[in-house]
Amino acid sequence: MTHRTIPPQSGTAFTLKAGQRLTVIDPEGQQVSDLVAFNAEDTDEWLSSGRTLDYASKFLLSTGDILYSNRSSPMLTIERDDVGRHDFLLAPCSKEMFAKLYGHTEPHRGCFGNLAAALEPYGIAPDRIPTAFNVFMNVQVNGTNGQLSVEPPLSKAGDSTVFLAQMDLVVALTACSAGQSNNFRFKPIQYRVE
Amino acid sequence: MTHRTIPPQSGTAFTLKAGQRLTVIDPEGQQVSDLVAFNAEDTDEWLSSGRTLDYASKFLLSTGDILYSNRSSPMLTIERDDVGRHDFLLAPCSKEMFAKLYGHTEPHRGCFGNLAAALEPYGIAPDRIPTAFNVFMNVQVNGTNGQLSVEPPLSKAGDSTVFLAQMDLVVALTACSAGQSNNFRFKPIQYRVE
Repeated sequence: MTHRTIPPQSGTAFTLKAGQRLTVIDPEGQQVSDLVAFNAEDTDEWLSSGRTLDYASKFLLSTGDILYSNRSSPMLTIERDDVGRHDFLLAPCSKEMFAKLYGHTEPHRGCFGNLAAALEPYGIAPDRIPTAFNVFMNVQVNGTNGQLSVEPPLSKAGDSTVFLAQMDLVVALTACSAGQSNNFRFKPIQYRVE
Repeated sequence: MTHRTIPPQSGTAFTLKAGQRLTVIDPEGQQVSDLVAFNAEDTDEWLSSGRTLDYASKFLLSTGDILYSNRSSPMLTIERDDVGRHDFLLAPCSKEMFAKLYGHTEPHRGCFGNLAAALEPYGIAPDRIPTAFNVFMNVQVNGTNGQLSVEPPLSKAGDSTVFLAQMDLVVALTACSAGQSNNFRFKPIQYRVE
């Protein structure tokens, strides 16, 4: 399959069969893609930050690490990773977040709105959207005072991360809408399923 | 109201009205209590680690900090805190977690099983349980290499944390079942609603 492109500030969803590989590509560099996943056979099973961090005993995930569901089942394995810095702490940017954190008066629907719209055809309600695995997102963590700061991604043009599906999944993916996450230039994301 | 006691390795659930205060007490010291909350009027709205960390821009929460729902509404404010160290990163301990991380052959149902049982009468299914706010849990975070390590709680006998409800809530609370979280002695938790 050739690349598909997610235009700036939008999102998409698709099925990924067990054994298929999803490659998420940053075509221009310094862009973030929020990824959520659900068991395609039973969408009450969802990608869980809390379970994944617990099993990994770390918050920085890269090649060889497994992303787990709320039921402790492996959903995705990171098979290859050009970047090595992703975030699994912060919720997707949203209308409410743009208003609260940045004072936007006509806030964009953000990754959250884009994920919700993309998941609607699969019967997955907005309230079911968990903390996303934020591909390429660079959140620096101060272990001493607890501060979290969103910095420009470390991804360069053409960098990618490859995920191997461990079960049949519904995956939703965005090109992030938060200026702070992408160094204040909205860019596309590309992906490939094979 | 006098204290209620949650026996070691068990859990409970109750309603907390907007404006009521929940005091979580560690009667013997070095014990953890997993806390989850849902909007009592619409239990599809749940306490969200990802939203809370995003709005706080930090992962260590204490006096004055607000715990948010998945819909970006304030659920609980931390009004007073003797301890100042809690965790909001790791999922509740569970049967699967005890088997996977510690190799237990007859694993306890853990905080997850206790939360699920306590929430069942409120019509909240186990798959709806999010990452808990782990009161008194001491997870040390290495911001450089990403390592997370579970250390004995900093709470001493009689220490407490007070939460003020910002909406009508269903709250579930445990006395944690994970040895690593409570320095390997299972203890009760006490709480008070007023």
